[in-house]
Amino acid sequence: MKTILLTGFEAFGTTPVNPAEQVARRLDGESIAGATIVSRIIPNTFFVCIDTVRDALREIGADAVVMLGEFGGRATISVERFALNFNDSTRYGLKDNAGVSLQGEPTAPDGPLAYQSTLPVRAMVTAMRAGGIPADISDAPGTFCCNHLFYGMLHHLAVTGQNIPAGWIHLPHLPEVAALEHNLGAPSMSVATAAKGLRLALTALVEHPQDSDVPVSGRLQV
Amino acid sequence: MKTILLTGFEAFGTTPVNPAEQVARRLDGESIAGATIVSRIIPNTFFVCIDTVRDALREIGADAVVMLGEFGGRATISVERFALNFNDSTRYGLKDNAGVSLQGEPTAPDGPLAYQSTLPVRAMVTAMRAGGIPADISDAPGTFCCNHLFYGMLHHLAVTGQNIPAGWIHLPHLPEVAALEHNLGAPSMSVATAAKGLRLALTALVEHPQDSDVPVSGRLQV
Amino acid sequence: MKTILLTGFEAFGTTPVNPAEQVARRLDGESIAGATIVSRIIPNTFFVCIDTVRDALREIGADAVVMLGEFGGRATISVERFALNFNDSTRYGLKDNAGVSLQGEPTAPDGPLAYQSTLPVRAMVTAMRAGGIPADISDAPGTFCCNHLFYGMLHHLAVTGQNIPAGWIHLPHLPEVAALEHNLGAPSMSVATAAKGLRLALTALVEHPQDSDVPVSGRLQV
Amino acid sequence: MKTILLTGFEAFGTTPVNPAEQVARRLDGESIAGATIVSRIIPNTFFVCIDTVRDALREIGADAVVMLGEFGGRATISVERFALNFNDSTRYGLKDNAGVSLQGEPTAPDGPLAYQSTLPVRAMVTAMRAGGIPADISDAPGTFCCNHLFYGMLHHLAVTGQNIPAGWIHLPHLPEVAALEHNLGAPSMSVATAAKGLRLALTALVEHPQDSDVPVSGRLQV
Repeated sequence: MKTILLTGFEAFGTTPVNPAEQVARRLDGESIAGATIVSRIIPNTFFVCIDTVRDALREIGADAVVMLGEFGGRATISVERFALNFNDSTRYGLKDNAGVSLQGEPTAPDGPLAYQSTLPVRAMVTAMRAGGIPADISDAPGTFCCNHLFYGMLHHLAVTGQNIPAGWIHLPHLPEVAALEHNLGAPSMSVATAAKGLRLALTALVEHPQDSDVPVSGRLQV
Repeated sequence: MKTILLTGFEAFGTTPVNPAEQVARRLDGESIAGATIVSRIIPNTFFVCIDTVRDALREIGADAVVMLGEFGGRATISVERFALNFNDSTRYGLKDNAGVSLQGEPTAPDGPLAYQSTLPVRAMVTAMRAGGIPADISDAPGTFCCNHLFYGMLHHLAVTGQNIPAGWIHLPHLPEVAALEHNLGAPSMSVATAAKGLRLALTALVEHPQDSDVPVSGRLQV
Repeated sequence: MKTILLTGFEAFGTTPVNPAEQVARRLDGESIAGATIVSRIIPNTFFVCIDTVRDALREIGADAVVMLGEFGGRATISVERFALNFNDSTRYGLKDNAGVSLQGEPTAPDGPLAYQSTLPVRAMVTAMRAGGIPADISDAPGTFCCNHLFYGMLHHLAVTGQNIPAGWIHLPHLPEVAALEHNLGAPSMSVATAAKGLRLALTALVEHPQDSDVPVSGRLQV
Repeated sequence: MKTILLTGFEAFGTTPVNPAEQVARRLDGESIAGATIVSRIIPNTFFVCIDTVRDALREIGADAVVMLGEFGGRATISVERFALNFNDSTRYGLKDNAGVSLQGEPTAPDGPLAYQSTLPVRAMVTAMRAGGIPADISDAPGTFCCNHLFYGMLHHLAVTGQNIPAGWIHLPHLPEVAALEHNLGAPSMSVATAAKGLRLALTALVEHPQDSDVPVSGRLQV
C-alpha cells in the first residue's frame, strides 16, 4: 500500500471546528507503515462531497480511502461497519453547508440499501486500544452527511469495480467544541490524541488489510 | 388490518425476564383500532427464532408482523429502521439460548446486506410521544438475535412476496432487571408503560400504514 | 412508628407533572408496616416550602418525615445522604414557582454547611433493589428547591430538638415528562413503579430505623 | 500570590496511571500569572495523604493549595464546591493503597460535616470554558480518597487558622485508561488538554481570588 487518501469534513452546523479536518491536516504527507498519507478537506454538502472525494481519488490514485467525520456525544474513535443508502437530517434539525435538509431520500436511487466497510475494522480498533487510544466499532453511522459520503464512496467504488479498502472513522468533539454552552458535558478528544489513534489505525490497515478474527468487545447498550 | 402478529423474545443472557415476552403476553388477544393482536413467545436462538415466527405467520395469516426485543441501556421504546444481514454476538460476550455465538456470519448468505422496516416508523414514534410514552427511532438494531430475527423475517417476506408491514421495536430493561447488580444505573420501563406505548404504536400502524412525513426529532449522539 | 409524613413537590420549571406529587397522593392514607402515611403537596417555592412542611409536621405530629422531589436525568430512585446549606438555581437556569432565583445564598445563615439524612439510607436502597425497583444512594442533592427543603427541615428538627428520622428521596421523570421534546432520551419511571419502591423504602424505615451495615454498591462515576 | 502548592494523587484501584499525578508533574515549576507552581505527588492512602499535604504546605509555605484527583466517568474538568466529613469506599468496591476500606467513618470526628471550597470556583470554570477546555462545577466529590483529602486539608487550614485559598479539581480518565477493557466507552482527556485547563484555572485563582458572580450553567441531571 503506497498511498492512502485521508479525507476530513469541514465545519458544519453547531460545530465550528471539525476534528476530522484538523486530524486530516495533521497527518497530511506523513509516512505511516510505508504508506504516504494524502489528505483532502471535504465540503459538508450532500452529493458535492461525494464528487469531491471521487475526483480526489482519481487524481491521487490511492490504494485505500479512509474518511473522517465528527460524531458529537461519542467518547471514543469509532470505526463504522455499515453505510446506509438513506438520508435523514431533519431528525437532528441539521442542514448541510448548502442549506439542504433531506428526509428519507436515498443517496443512490439504484444502489443497494447498505454497504459494509472494507476497512479491517477489528484490527484497527484493536490496534488503537492496544496503543492507549479509546476506540470502538460502531454499527450506527447516523443519517447525515458522514453516512451519506461513506455510502456514496462505497457505491462509487462498487460500480466502478475499484477493489480498494474504504471506510469511515468517526471522531469525538474537539475539547474547544465540547466546551461550548450547547455541548455542556459532552466527551471530547484532542487533535493530538485522535491523530495518534489514526496513525495506529492506518498502520493496522496496512498490516492487516484482511482484518483480524479477534473479537472486539463492546456494549449492547447504545 | 384484521390481525397483527406480535412476537416477544424470551429471557436470555443476563436478562432473566424479557420485557418483550411480558408485553406480548399482556397484549395477546386485545383488539387495537379494530385489529386483533395474536402474540407468540419466541426462543432466543439463532435461525430457530426465524422458523418459529415464519411458522406462526403461516398458521395465523396476519396482516402485519411486529416483533419485540429488549435493548438494555436504552431509556425509550425504539422503533428500528434497518435490519442487517450480519451477526456478531462475540462483541457483547453473548451466546444465544442454544449456546451459539456468531461473529460476522450473515443470516441469509444470498440475501442483501440490509432491509428497511416496512412499519410506519415516524407515525408510531409520534403517536407514542403524543400519548406520553418516551419513544424514538433507532438506526442501530445491534448484531445479536433481535437484529437477526428482524432481518430474517424481512428477508422471508421479501423472497415469498408477502407484502405486509413488518418490523422491530426495542424495549428498555424492566425495572426488576435494571435493579440487578450488573445493570446498576440502567434506565427501565414497566410492563404497563411499555404496553401502553405498544397500543399507541399499533394504533398508528393500523391508521397510518403509509407512515407520516412529519419529522421525528432525535439526537446525533448515539 | 405510627405516622409518617410524606411530602411531594408540585410541578415546577419545565416539569408539568411532578412524580413527587403523584407518588405522595398515591400513598396518602395507606398503612405501611403498621405506619399510616399522611401526604402533603408542597409549593415549589424557596422558604415557603420549609414553612409548609414544618406546619404540616406540627399539625400531624408524625414520627418520621420523608420528602419527595424529582431529579430529571436519573434512572433510579435515589435516597439522598446529605443536605447542603447552599442554594444555586442560576446554575440550572431555574426559578422557583414564585419567580425567585438564588445564587450562593444559604438557607439558614446561622446553620451548619450540611446535615446528614437521618433515614436508614442503606436499608431503604437495599430493600428497593431486593424488591425489583432500581434504587441507589446519592451524595448529590442538587442546589435547587429539593436540597433547600431537605436542608431546611433537617435544620428545623435540629434546632427544635425533634429527634425523628427525616430525609429526601429523588424520583426520575415520569414517562409523560421524559416524552417531551426537551427531555428527549431521558430515563423515566412510572407512578406505579415509584410507588412500589416507596412502599419498600418506607417498610425499611419502620423495620430498620438504625440502618443496615451492608454496603450498597454504586459507581464512582457521576 | 507567590507560590501555589499543586498536589496530584498517584495511581490507585483500577487506574494504573492517574491524570492528577501527570498534570501535577507537568506543571511543576511553571510560573503562572506570576505564581510559581510547586507540585507534590500524594499517596492514595487515607489519613497519610492528609499528613503528606499538610507537611508539604508547611515546608513550602504556599499561598494557595490546589489538589488534583481522577473522577472516572466524567467528561469535564470539575471544580468541587463541597467536601464531606464522611468516607464510604465500600460503595465503589475500592480500597486505598494500604488496603483499607472505610464505610461511614468521618475524617475528623470533631469536625463539621462539610466545608466549602475556598477557591474561586466560578471564575476557574468560566476561564477554562472561555479557553476551550470542557469544565464544570461539581457538588459531588465522591466518598473516596479525593473527598477525604479535600476535607482533611480544609479542616486542617480551618483549625490552624490559615486563611489561604484551597480546594479540589477532578480530572477525567486519561485516554490510555479509558482504553482499558473495564472502562469501555468512558470519556477521557489528555494530559496536554488537562494541563492547559489547569493553567487557565490557576490564572483565574491568581486574578479573581474572590470569585466571580457570573453564573456558570450546568445541568440538574447528575
